Amino acid sequence: MESLHQSIAVRFSYDVHFTRDLWSITNPLLSQVIATGSNLAKSAIVIVDSGLLDYHPQLLTKITNYADYYADQIKLATEPIVVPGGEAAKNDPTLVDQIHQTIEQVGLCRHSYVLAIGGGAVIDMAGYAAATAHRGIRLIRIPTTVLAQNDSGVGVKNGINALGKKNFLGTFAPPVAVLNDFDFLTTLDDRDWRAGIAEAVKVALIKDRNFFEFISDRADDLAQQDSQAMEQLIYRCCQLHLNHIASYGDPFEMGSSRPLDFGHWAAHKLEHLTHYRLRHGEAVAIGMALDCTYSYLTGLLAKAEWQQIIRTLKQLGFKLYVPELSRDMENLTLENSIFRGLVEFREHLGGDLAIMLLQQIGEGTEVNQVNIPVYQKAISMLQKIEVETISQFN
Amino acid sequence: MESLHQSIAVRFSYDVHFTRDLWSITNPLLSQVIATGSNLAKSAIVIVDSGLLDYHPQLLTKITNYADYYADQIKLATEPIVVPGGEAAKNDPTLVDQIHQTIEQVGLCRHSYVLAIGGGAVIDMAGYAAATAHRGIRLIRIPTTVLAQNDSGVGVKNGINALGKKNFLGTFAPPVAVLNDFDFLTTLDDRDWRAGIAEAVKVALIKDRNFFEFISDRADDLAQQDSQAMEQLIYRCCQLHLNHIASYGDPFEMGSSRPLDFGHWAAHKLEHLTHYRLRHGEAVAIGMALDCTYSYLTGLLAKAEWQQIIRTLKQLGFKLYVPELSRDMENLTLENSIFRGLVEFREHLGGDLAIMLLQQIGEGTEVNQVNIPVYQKAISMLQKIEVETISQFN
Repeated sequence: MESLHQSIAVRFSYDVHFTRDLWSITNPLLSQVIATGSNLAKSAIVIVDSGLLDYHPQLLTKITNYADYYADQIKLATEPIVVPGGEAAKNDPTLVDQIHQTIEQVGLCRHSYVLAIGGGAVIDMAGYAAATAHRGIRLIRIPTTVLAQNDSGVGVKNGINALGKKNFLGTFAPPVAVLNDFDFLTTLDDRDWRAGIAEAVKVALIKDRNFFEFISDRADDLAQQDSQAMEQLIYRCCQLHLNHIASYGDPFEMGSSRPLDFGHWAAHKLEHLTHYRLRHGEAVAIGMALDCTYSYLTGLLAKAEWQQIIRTLKQLGFKLYVPELSRDMENLTLENSIFRGLVEFREHLGGDLAIMLLQQIGEGTEVNQVNIPVYQKAISMLQKIEVETISQFN
Repeated sequence: MESLHQSIAVRFSYDVHFTRDLWSITNPLLSQVIATGSNLAKSAIVIVDSGLLDYHPQLLTKITNYADYYADQIKLATEPIVVPGGEAAKNDPTLVDQIHQTIEQVGLCRHSYVLAIGGGAVIDMAGYAAATAHRGIRLIRIPTTVLAQNDSGVGVKNGINALGKKNFLGTFAPPVAVLNDFDFLTTLDDRDWRAGIAEAVKVALIKDRNFFEFISDRADDLAQQDSQAMEQLIYRCCQLHLNHIASYGDPFEMGSSRPLDFGHWAAHKLEHLTHYRLRHGEAVAIGMALDCTYSYLTGLLAKAEWQQIIRTLKQLGFKLYVPELSRDMENLTLENSIFRGLVEFREHLGGDLAIMLLQQIGEGTEVNQVNIPVYQKAISMLQKIEVETISQFN
């Protein structure tokens, strides 16, 4: 009997909106997004990052009031569910269970909504819970950090950490909408504000020289929490990110298509080695500094461009070295060696090793093998830069 | 700032192959499927339904020998993993954890393979584990029952039972290939052989009158385990199933597209009410008899066609009534009432209630509300038919 061939195309569409004061009853955006294509009020549950409540003590009340006011569009199936923020959200498997239980208890269906409000970790975790209940309940992401607004929040992934590996469990599952509320950024602490800039630097470095020049020019403003510079940065970063996902023909990375992962092999490992003392963006800044320095040392990247990158990262306020970079650096097989990150990165992405390097600002290039001694030298250079003044880069 | 719009199309392609003696080293099919597009041997783990080993005691040895012989294409990352068969596979959450742990321990990447050999339940469970590790490891389904070969095994879903609900956890995740080995069918017991026919009857009734006539004509042969009739049945059922998924533009059921779920609202509830004493196919046969009888009683379906359907189901050997159908049938709000299945069905599929009925053999039609007293009458009729001779239908 002849084989049967199946070929299906699944289309996913979603809008990324930019707004302020999302939960004010004078802002109809969320109600409009939820009401699309239906006359009935839609059931929803809301997952809230506990980190928000210190700075937005009225948030839960505002959410409830909003749902009351827009009762024709939204029906809150239960009180907002508060979960720990940061990597803790992805390290505790009972949170996913708790959301599943709530979904079951209140009887959400696949046309209901899960609203996830918070940093990237909470959104990743809630997104995974939503994607696996009833084979996928509609997810609206409401990211509240720079990192989540310009990077993870606009992508097609979710996940939690498991078995000691970052993002070991997860799915590809696009949201139905992303609502970026700039007002949440005004209450970020210095570290969270800065950490999110790292992903914008990443996209700029491998995709868009003009964008990098903008970041470089406005580095001091960005470091000093200039809202207008930050909003421009987030908007452009979202655009580049969405374009990348849409234009490579393989958004779920089934073939050899790669995500935007410059600097990420070392970053993922560093987060783990520092027990998440480093924020993701802080680790990415170090990972990028490392891969830029390696690119320079192997003759791929011109010295002046390498200097401009290092100078910009320092101006933005990033540390470019932590002791974990050097730990067991001579012995690649040890669990605590940064270079174990190369193996783990390959495993997670699948296929052969592929590391993104830089051939000039705005243009990444992929290599399939690396020279460890040169990487060791790059680490020593970063250590030296970190302890010296950065005058040589000015 | 203007909203950004994202629209991506994700293409999934897979072949359904029909073969015999898949694990014989003279059969290169599996090695060819795995080797596609690569020169390197691919890592794989194999999940085996324990129910197979009684009838195929050499299976594990054959799998190992096959991988040895085709070592240039397949690298078994560990010994085959044997898991309980039947609904037990979907009721025990530790099995998914165990597969995740194995994937982590042996370092499978997203370009590696999970091979799932067994009935639909084992394939659903292993498919869920594969879909959620590293956001999706490639799945090859090797279904060994009629039901899995002609229905669940060729679709795009996976899942396990949780929180008392069938398929509460799961994802939409197509396999990379399906290998239907007819030899596995020769060792099925009478109940499993018959149960699988129910899904073919379902597709025939709502899609293809000629196919139903074939089943009706060959009902005695099918009941007596005629291989040739069964192979034709499976092939045609796969074709119809694949066409349905591909041709409705919404294979992941995000909008109002419906799966092929005739007779299923009652079937799902009956499985639960009988504590899975009924096999899925056995429950579907009862569910279809119920919805056909309801279609007849409401004037939708002609009497002669209704009689032909009931006669064919009886000839195939299906029971059309179990006492759980009548339990708490007067009180819709009780957990043990069959009619609670209507609510649960709507929740699981999302959106409004939509029940598939029959307007003629080969043509289903959807209704959004039902008349409970008529359904109660239909149940009484099925009870009567079951205790009487079926002479009135001959």
